[in-house]
Amino acid sequence: MDKLMRRLSTQDQNFKQIFADLLAFETVSDPELLKTVDQIIADVRQHGDAHVLKLTQQFDRHPAHQFSELELTQEQLKAAFEGLSTEVREALELAANRVREFHQAQKQDGWTYVDALGNTLGQKVTPLDRVGIYVPGGLASYPSSVLMNAVPAHVAGVAEIIMVVPAPNGDLNPLVLAAAYLAGVHRVFTIGGAQAVAALAYGTETIPRVDKITGPGNRFVAAAKRAVFGQVGIDMIAGPSEILVYAEGENNAEWLAMDLLSQAEHDTVAQAVFITPDEDLLNAVGEWIEKHLEALPKAEIARTSIENRGALVLVKDRAEGAELINQVAPEHLMLCLDEAEAMAEDIRHAGAIFMGRYTPEAIGDYCAGPNHVLPTSGTARFSSPLGVYDFQKRSSLIMCSENGVKTLAKTADILAQQENLDAHARSARYRYQ
Amino acid sequence: MDKLMRRLSTQDQNFKQIFADLLAFETVSDPELLKTVDQIIADVRQHGDAHVLKLTQQFDRHPAHQFSELELTQEQLKAAFEGLSTEVREALELAANRVREFHQAQKQDGWTYVDALGNTLGQKVTPLDRVGIYVPGGLASYPSSVLMNAVPAHVAGVAEIIMVVPAPNGDLNPLVLAAAYLAGVHRVFTIGGAQAVAALAYGTETIPRVDKITGPGNRFVAAAKRAVFGQVGIDMIAGPSEILVYAEGENNAEWLAMDLLSQAEHDTVAQAVFITPDEDLLNAVGEWIEKHLEALPKAEIARTSIENRGALVLVKDRAEGAELINQVAPEHLMLCLDEAEAMAEDIRHAGAIFMGRYTPEAIGDYCAGPNHVLPTSGTARFSSPLGVYDFQKRSSLIMCSENGVKTLAKTADILAQQENLDAHARSARYRYQ
Repeated sequence: MDKLMRRLSTQDQNFKQIFADLLAFETVSDPELLKTVDQIIADVRQHGDAHVLKLTQQFDRHPAHQFSELELTQEQLKAAFEGLSTEVREALELAANRVREFHQAQKQDGWTYVDALGNTLGQKVTPLDRVGIYVPGGLASYPSSVLMNAVPAHVAGVAEIIMVVPAPNGDLNPLVLAAAYLAGVHRVFTIGGAQAVAALAYGTETIPRVDKITGPGNRFVAAAKRAVFGQVGIDMIAGPSEILVYAEGENNAEWLAMDLLSQAEHDTVAQAVFITPDEDLLNAVGEWIEKHLEALPKAEIARTSIENRGALVLVKDRAEGAELINQVAPEHLMLCLDEAEAMAEDIRHAGAIFMGRYTPEAIGDYCAGPNHVLPTSGTARFSSPLGVYDFQKRSSLIMCSENGVKTLAKTADILAQQENLDAHARSARYRYQ
Repeated sequence: MDKLMRRLSTQDQNFKQIFADLLAFETVSDPELLKTVDQIIADVRQHGDAHVLKLTQQFDRHPAHQFSELELTQEQLKAAFEGLSTEVREALELAANRVREFHQAQKQDGWTYVDALGNTLGQKVTPLDRVGIYVPGGLASYPSSVLMNAVPAHVAGVAEIIMVVPAPNGDLNPLVLAAAYLAGVHRVFTIGGAQAVAALAYGTETIPRVDKITGPGNRFVAAAKRAVFGQVGIDMIAGPSEILVYAEGENNAEWLAMDLLSQAEHDTVAQAVFITPDEDLLNAVGEWIEKHLEALPKAEIARTSIENRGALVLVKDRAEGAELINQVAPEHLMLCLDEAEAMAEDIRHAGAIFMGRYTPEAIGDYCAGPNHVLPTSGTARFSSPLGVYDFQKRSSLIMCSENGVKTLAKTADILAQQENLDAHARSARYRYQ
């Protein structure tokens, strides 16, 4: 096989095994890393601000001499926003507005009903009090990530949104600060790594303890989030980015190739998979990928991703394509065919479904409206895009009347006795005897 | 202080510190335990059924000679159900029906809208394909837990619900099997511990891989769930049970004392806290607790819980009471006063709120309708009762028209360039140029 990109057919011998191996991606937990992270968390809990400052000077070579220099003011955020070119400012505003509009449709309300016995039952929905948003520094410091994490929290009604973003050598991306301003972030600290996660989870003299931490980070950040899970809520631990494009019928192969490359350019371990029942289209897409790889600025990253983890897969028909898609449970799914909506009915597992030929995945990263924080590595089997619901939680409501409780109390009494929980049985019995 | 139960007042010097220390409960992660659990998971992944059988024979002293003996048939579940006394069967049916009715109100549907540009946006909601429910064996093998885990999964539309329950010496609680029958559990394996969690997370020759594992278990089960998080979804790792009762005005102190004891009898580290602005009521409740502790079958457990982790707290007024409640974020909250509903408005964090004098917490454990799997140890700050929403997940839907995409593609192009993601920018540009 002298082609750059792996070509598979469901008719191949051992296709199932080869395809399963291609999808497999397991992050190995490194005991040394976990030990380092546990130590950082313990030290931040004990020494607070002082330790966070020390590690920030050490790891980020940040020039700050005291902790207060690590907090930005709202004026600084506003100035960053006002310093943008008109074109970029308008693009960021359009994105923020569309993300806000979409997420407003996700907001959940409480409800109650009165049962046949006259008891009131329901759920109350409340926002989290305070959340922390982790934004990576350096090259992966994306303004779009700020919007995608902060806007849903803001729409949910979170009273205090705290952003942390490391500033290597004291340098910050002004677009990230502008996005924080637009998204309604309340406080920004220029810290990062496991020490920032620990500070948010447990609080320090200056940084208040949050209730949930969301946002992507390097392996130290991921390990720290896993370690503080339970003390605070966390979002999913993100794996490498993925795209699966299914196409049939009239299509522009060059467009499809670029859609696949747009994920491949993220990361050498990103995954781009193309599935089609049309062998000519498969070949054309493969050729366009090779061609564009010659010119793309991030060609080296994209080439490694395409060679190691990419695939062009020929299927018998659409039904077989849908079956493979459900097996992959891709983060991003593009369905490029006339009957995209009908096919989407058969998709059970995907983070986001882009339908038709005029819906490139890239618009979902920035401004379509839906969140770009999506379940990776097959976790769309059991999890959802980041949303307003991640920043709200529910409390059950139960209020029985003097009469309405009787049937329930008798039932609880009987069942509690079966479970040998005598105080349960008695506390129920008082209410009906 | 010669009283059994700790008495505090918000007027005490150092009240804040004393109260914070009382609430603190941290499970220490034991490196030896984690190593054992990691090894069990690795062995189950490698050897499948054979290793699960071996550990089940070893740890549970189960008499099975081959793996197939560890699966129960639907006939066995049905026989267990039909073998119940009429009283118990009817109580279990009433509980299952009420839990089902309440959870049906939680079911979420997808939605779409068309934006001003003519693009369709929305979310699709789908059930998980397959879930695993862990039910502890032996003394803590509660039929109510089976209902509370399996019914929401069933209401969500999960196609396959697999229950695991260890059978020490081959013994099973027939009520647990009856509850599985009523709740619509599809398959039952009599296995437990970290090996059962590993088998559900990765699958074996006989046990299919699930998408999410819920349900309580011992520290091996908790550590295993934490270890497989990411490979599958999990519910929260549960801490000890807690109740907080707030009362004022006309109340029966004996009832309130028994409500507090109903949590204390669960576990020596369970927590029962009583808060009131009424010193006479506080004293009366304290006296009834001491009195009932003389007669309760589980007095030894309850006494340890009350002595070590219980408290009677005198507050200035209702507002101060609400503030303390929000600080605790209790699993179970009883508000026993005329204005319970008004006070509930001020509660931001609680797993379940039981309002009025005729709503004992115990009915919530069995048959009120809401779930009894609730966030513990203050995690109600950021998490919710187990519900249908835990067995459903969402996919974003995006479909642009040829015209509608233009504004979005242009915006994505501009922002992608700012993030130096050239393939993103180009794939967007194709759609508007």
